[in-house]
Amino acid sequence: MLNMKTVSECASIFKITPEDASSLSDEELVMLLIHDKIPARELERILGDTTRAVQIRRALILHSTNSKTLEGPLLPMHGYDYGHVLGRCCENVIGYIPLPVGVAGPFNVDGESLYLPMATTEECLVASTSRGCKAINTGGGATTVLLADCMTRAPCVEFPSIIQASACKKWLEGHGFKKMQDAFRSTSRFCSLLKIKAAVAGRLVYIRFSASTGDAMGMNMVTKGSERALEELGKWFPTMSIVSLSGNYCTDKKSAAINWIEGRGKSVVAEAVIPGKVVECVLGTTVAALVELNLNKNLIGSAMAGAIGGFNAHAANILTAIYLATGQDPAQNVQSSACITLMKATNNGQDLLINCTMPSIEVGTFGGGTVLPPQASMLDLLGVRGPHAESPGANAQRLARIICAGVMAGELSLCAALATGNLVESHRILNRPPPCPIDRLTPH
Amino acid sequence: MLNMKTVSECASIFKITPEDASSLSDEELVMLLIHDKIPARELERILGDTTRAVQIRRALILHSTNSKTLEGPLLPMHGYDYGHVLGRCCENVIGYIPLPVGVAGPFNVDGESLYLPMATTEECLVASTSRGCKAINTGGGATTVLLADCMTRAPCVEFPSIIQASACKKWLEGHGFKKMQDAFRSTSRFCSLLKIKAAVAGRLVYIRFSASTGDAMGMNMVTKGSERALEELGKWFPTMSIVSLSGNYCTDKKSAAINWIEGRGKSVVAEAVIPGKVVECVLGTTVAALVELNLNKNLIGSAMAGAIGGFNAHAANILTAIYLATGQDPAQNVQSSACITLMKATNNGQDLLINCTMPSIEVGTFGGGTVLPPQASMLDLLGVRGPHAESPGANAQRLARIICAGVMAGELSLCAALATGNLVESHRILNRPPPCPIDRLTPH
Amino acid sequence: MLNMKTVSECASIFKITPEDASSLSDEELVMLLIHDKIPARELERILGDTTRAVQIRRALILHSTNSKTLEGPLLPMHGYDYGHVLGRCCENVIGYIPLPVGVAGPFNVDGESLYLPMATTEECLVASTSRGCKAINTGGGATTVLLADCMTRAPCVEFPSIIQASACKKWLEGHGFKKMQDAFRSTSRFCSLLKIKAAVAGRLVYIRFSASTGDAMGMNMVTKGSERALEELGKWFPTMSIVSLSGNYCTDKKSAAINWIEGRGKSVVAEAVIPGKVVECVLGTTVAALVELNLNKNLIGSAMAGAIGGFNAHAANILTAIYLATGQDPAQNVQSSACITLMKATNNGQDLLINCTMPSIEVGTFGGGTVLPPQASMLDLLGVRGPHAESPGANAQRLARIICAGVMAGELSLCAALATGNLVESHRILNRPPPCPIDRLTPH
Amino acid sequence: MLNMKTVSECASIFKITPEDASSLSDEELVMLLIHDKIPARELERILGDTTRAVQIRRALILHSTNSKTLEGPLLPMHGYDYGHVLGRCCENVIGYIPLPVGVAGPFNVDGESLYLPMATTEECLVASTSRGCKAINTGGGATTVLLADCMTRAPCVEFPSIIQASACKKWLEGHGFKKMQDAFRSTSRFCSLLKIKAAVAGRLVYIRFSASTGDAMGMNMVTKGSERALEELGKWFPTMSIVSLSGNYCTDKKSAAINWIEGRGKSVVAEAVIPGKVVECVLGTTVAALVELNLNKNLIGSAMAGAIGGFNAHAANILTAIYLATGQDPAQNVQSSACITLMKATNNGQDLLINCTMPSIEVGTFGGGTVLPPQASMLDLLGVRGPHAESPGANAQRLARIICAGVMAGELSLCAALATGNLVESHRILNRPPPCPIDRLTPH
Repeated sequence: MLNMKTVSECASIFKITPEDASSLSDEELVMLLIHDKIPARELERILGDTTRAVQIRRALILHSTNSKTLEGPLLPMHGYDYGHVLGRCCENVIGYIPLPVGVAGPFNVDGESLYLPMATTEECLVASTSRGCKAINTGGGATTVLLADCMTRAPCVEFPSIIQASACKKWLEGHGFKKMQDAFRSTSRFCSLLKIKAAVAGRLVYIRFSASTGDAMGMNMVTKGSERALEELGKWFPTMSIVSLSGNYCTDKKSAAINWIEGRGKSVVAEAVIPGKVVECVLGTTVAALVELNLNKNLIGSAMAGAIGGFNAHAANILTAIYLATGQDPAQNVQSSACITLMKATNNGQDLLINCTMPSIEVGTFGGGTVLPPQASMLDLLGVRGPHAESPGANAQRLARIICAGVMAGELSLCAALATGNLVESHRILNRPPPCPIDRLTPH
Repeated sequence: MLNMKTVSECASIFKITPEDASSLSDEELVMLLIHDKIPARELERILGDTTRAVQIRRALILHSTNSKTLEGPLLPMHGYDYGHVLGRCCENVIGYIPLPVGVAGPFNVDGESLYLPMATTEECLVASTSRGCKAINTGGGATTVLLADCMTRAPCVEFPSIIQASACKKWLEGHGFKKMQDAFRSTSRFCSLLKIKAAVAGRLVYIRFSASTGDAMGMNMVTKGSERALEELGKWFPTMSIVSLSGNYCTDKKSAAINWIEGRGKSVVAEAVIPGKVVECVLGTTVAALVELNLNKNLIGSAMAGAIGGFNAHAANILTAIYLATGQDPAQNVQSSACITLMKATNNGQDLLINCTMPSIEVGTFGGGTVLPPQASMLDLLGVRGPHAESPGANAQRLARIICAGVMAGELSLCAALATGNLVESHRILNRPPPCPIDRLTPH
Repeated sequence: MLNMKTVSECASIFKITPEDASSLSDEELVMLLIHDKIPARELERILGDTTRAVQIRRALILHSTNSKTLEGPLLPMHGYDYGHVLGRCCENVIGYIPLPVGVAGPFNVDGESLYLPMATTEECLVASTSRGCKAINTGGGATTVLLADCMTRAPCVEFPSIIQASACKKWLEGHGFKKMQDAFRSTSRFCSLLKIKAAVAGRLVYIRFSASTGDAMGMNMVTKGSERALEELGKWFPTMSIVSLSGNYCTDKKSAAINWIEGRGKSVVAEAVIPGKVVECVLGTTVAALVELNLNKNLIGSAMAGAIGGFNAHAANILTAIYLATGQDPAQNVQSSACITLMKATNNGQDLLINCTMPSIEVGTFGGGTVLPPQASMLDLLGVRGPHAESPGANAQRLARIICAGVMAGELSLCAALATGNLVESHRILNRPPPCPIDRLTPH
Repeated sequence: MLNMKTVSECASIFKITPEDASSLSDEELVMLLIHDKIPARELERILGDTTRAVQIRRALILHSTNSKTLEGPLLPMHGYDYGHVLGRCCENVIGYIPLPVGVAGPFNVDGESLYLPMATTEECLVASTSRGCKAINTGGGATTVLLADCMTRAPCVEFPSIIQASACKKWLEGHGFKKMQDAFRSTSRFCSLLKIKAAVAGRLVYIRFSASTGDAMGMNMVTKGSERALEELGKWFPTMSIVSLSGNYCTDKKSAAINWIEGRGKSVVAEAVIPGKVVECVLGTTVAALVELNLNKNLIGSAMAGAIGGFNAHAANILTAIYLATGQDPAQNVQSSACITLMKATNNGQDLLINCTMPSIEVGTFGGGTVLPPQASMLDLLGVRGPHAESPGANAQRLARIICAGVMAGELSLCAALATGNLVESHRILNRPPPCPIDRLTPH
């Protein structure tokens, strides 16, 4: 501390030659930060050293709070390339949280064998999903279908009368549609406007633009398209005023019936037939018991609870774990995890038909969190990293289908555990020696 | 490869002396796994070396798939203590995903200054939330209130007639309540049954047990209590059969009105008053514009979209980021992020009153993902790690209140960006030189 | 017209001696009305002749509009005692609409045989319901259970801070509850406050008072109780201001999850077992087909449609028809008709178990439209007219149970028609010679 | 009774010469009915005298029940032409319920002055609506807009795999659409298929056909079209099986988000500007108070209650009363009354802007209950009876617009009463001498 400069000394150095700021000591830099001479979020730029920036930010927090937490290595800091994060994924970075990644599988999805990467801290989730995969594999694997693929953004605009608001809606759904398409296309060759749904509430119009966005999750792409489209729309309706570029009619990261009914992102269905013997041996229950449980819990129970799209056991668990492992936005699971799980006896009541329908899986294979190498590697593991070379959108669609199949595996396994009788026990059951030969029951 | 043993040689070694399995080479172990001689998920136990287990599991996947992804270090593997994960947080582990953690703040919540740790890969989320914190601080900070605190589990049981089903409901809500309380208490001294809500659907009864669970998130605790309670209930109603320990009337990780109306976990409100000048200088908009935007977007827009509990701009973003940083279950954001954001002019229209009401924040400060040191350190940063020494539940309640305040900061900042005009731009705006003095606008 | 007085002559007569107004001619009275010398709605009082008042009001409308409609007898006017209506049921009366009343039955409900009066103009509704009654009778009739009985009103109040709002909620749910009960009781001996549910949204509190109201539907009674309770509450919370005596959290005549989850009015379940042979002979379908149809339509179909409480085929049809016949408020069917219909094979798959659960049947047997003699006579037909002599509330509860059973009969019959194959045809089917002996199939 | 024939004598007469049955005495006919020799619902046909049939049916019920109710004239029976009802509106008729009809108005809707006929037994409803009309008139009347017009029916079909289900959806929304249009058109020249929305749930497909139906409400028309369309569809997809002609995805008479989001019947908006002075003088409150009340009650209160489409005060009241007066189906108010009411200060805060948006008004001006002369006369009063001569659909659309404007009048008046302070009082207030000059306040 002996040679430590005063705040004003430091500040003058910083002002005259910001490029020399890196020569200041950590303590001096913290002092400057405390006195608002440097904004903490500019540290990376000033120091030209992302890890040192993280270190000094931690020192600042240590100074400002009573907590000694950040002194030690509890929150990891080193060995991470913050260059990928800077300006793209996070600000004011102080380190990183390692989320353990497990794999469920191998899992046969549409004839391809793969491992589902799941980043989770929930005990038994991976093991249970893996058990579901195993059961499904024995019946020939999961089949999936893509029903629809489009991302949405819904600006809100206002007019001086309901007559004008109504005229705008009619124009958008009629002659204006092509103009809007042109506006979208001018912003990106991957962004193709497919549908407009305009909802009038008095003088307000909520314009839900639905566009295909290639292999990107597409929110930014559609938002840019929407902006351009509004510019164009303003030329045709000069009395229109823009209320908000997002009017919550999109709907993003909020529970709303519109996504359940209209779909958002990828709409996917997955199904599988599980031989009755496998239901008994691998899952420890019966076809009839599973069908009954699914009815009473996932349909009637959810109906009683006032569910919108929540007709499943724990779709969000599997989806969120795969989202986190593959760099998707985990906050979108609010609507992405909407799912109806159906079970039915088939083949004269001997086998189990299970399917999961998920209308709003919002995923991308480039952009967002997928730019980070660990997350990208997990997309690679699934063979869906980046934009698809020949068929734009095919990678993201494949990812959505895999997720839906994974959800089905998780549904099957948890429902079986519940049908067997005991939710808390189900955790332990999977770690216990099983009644069937080890190679048949445990995931591997 | 020269000295590599055959499968049967390896298997015999493994069978005779499993403790010597660790002496086998990686290739030999992979071979055994491929031939189902060892279950992959038992590797940790067999080898007694968690990191080597991860490494061999990766080799196995590498062998089974075309992907070379796991060969390299893209998905980090080393430098992580898998002992914390084993048997508690994840199975079949192959490495970990590092999620960058940024801090928003300092943030004045109920008179205490703190930094919000946010694990996220969404650009500008931390910066934007930080801007909201700054604006709220200038008005004296956020005030929060806890409205309720209980975790729920709702088994489904069935009776041979509606008359018996009805009798069970009446008993549970009347004389039986104390019996149920006793059953719960016998499972844990922290688990106190507070309420029973029994919904009849024909012969089915969905029994929603609500219990306080101290500083644990409480799902496991309430599930155990529910099991014991059902045992007791079965003595009074011998014709009752248990359909499922969870009947989806809880409701966990599904969008359902019941949590919005009844609450689950912590029910919290946060509010703040932002001086009009700060709205203009820090947020770049006006009180009137914010009030109007909130009305048209968060109330009317969500109403048009058929929202249940989704009357906010992006509560899920902030909540999920803090959940991930602090070891909460991110799949629970489905219902935890339900939020109604209200804005109103106050002080003769000069200043902005904002508040956020969130009935279902499901958090704990011990158990689950909080056992992992990095996550625990972030709880420590907030001063809420572990069970509260004197007042059980106080830590988890405090965490919920901080989250609600953080959500409010995020709501304020995003709505301001939208009111200013441009969602896509809002990302860049925060990185551009601001019109106000730097020490007033940028987060630090 | 020769001797017709001028407006001012008439007006002076009217002003000096309003009691002589009846001596004016019809034309003169219309003239006065047109010139705003008499308010049209005061005609009954002025003339002391309700039928003449109706006649003159018709003449006024005839004069004001192009329509000659009211000249003739198309809309009946005579033969109705308007005295019952005046000041109680309708204003500005111009006649009455006759709604045809049919009966479904005989119907065995809880061991008593009765006829369901249904006022409807929908073809086949009565016949179809009657067919359902017949099928149910053969299995021993319908059994019903009352789960709960209370009417609600939810004022909205506001506080200067969330802390005070929260304190109010806690007081209401704790110590204050008894004070509120006393306030309610002071307004009517039939009005007993049973529950308070207070929802906080920022500084607003929505206080849902639930009270038993004897045999009255109870909205007015609970509203009066709520007013008195708010007066009392204001003494304890002087900073509270009343926003609205009804804050839509009641919820009356709007589709809302709260009634589905919390109940309103009478919560009722009805069930019946239909022998498989009757399903085939009377209903023309099979147990398996009905179970499958109910699953795919009433559970899955409604789930896909985003239903809240709409898990039935046409509960509203039967309920509305009985409401209209018995003087209930048909606008309340919005929430009263919420119903989940379940079907299941029973007795080793041979017979059909059907049940209907309806949490919000809002009915009364005195007050409102039940004061009118024709409507009262239909309550009499069901043995539930007026307040129950010994057990207050028993009549209204019985009515609700009958309605629920009637709904079940209607559900059964329509679902059978749909399972048979053809909705449009189903109308004709019931009028065609049936395959079974006439005395078994047709309603009688 | 002396000459009364035995059952078998009567039965033989009846069998040999049913045309002579009318010569039997009332007692003899009742005896035959009791012994199941005649089905009660065939009485009209057998006797050739509809009124006598009603009389004998009453005697039968009198005989079968303890109730003497039907002996007297309490339930009117005479003076009604049952010929209109027979085979079209009701079965097993025993008389009719007279519903009093009042008028609200005059009311200026889109420049035309009219009276709203309301059949209701709710005190003050007509008077209150009339007050709203008066206030709206002073500001220039109500303006309405039709946003959309189509009726829906959604059969449910099933396929042997999700791949086929998905293929069907794609075909319907693509190449198949024209085939479906042709099928619809072949059933009626008024029935034009406008849209298909196909929702997949596993192997089930819910096909929501939306068609314009001229001036008919259109359920039967669309159902017939759907049947024909399914026949055609079956040719293209031979593995398809029909589950139900109605799969609840329509959705009719059930509360469901799909109608709120997609619309059903007529989607209408109405608006009006009320001068501030009129708000004060006629409505007894202020613009600011109304805006605040609408926000706290109709938006926030309903959001808290989990409303789907229930963002209004009492739209169902006005709508149901007009439905009953004009022969519409009152059970459809379940979804028809969905409404969002918005209020806002306008003209520099001096005046009130109010609007109501109603996406699902299901009405017709011929068919159904409109075939009955009294109901038809009320359509005549509004100038919208029967099919529109030149522009099919224009009458029904006009009716929907009038209803929406009427709802707005009712909303305005009730909200004003609540803003003034007292719901129970509001009933009396309207009957009390008003503070303003009589010709300004009271309806006339």
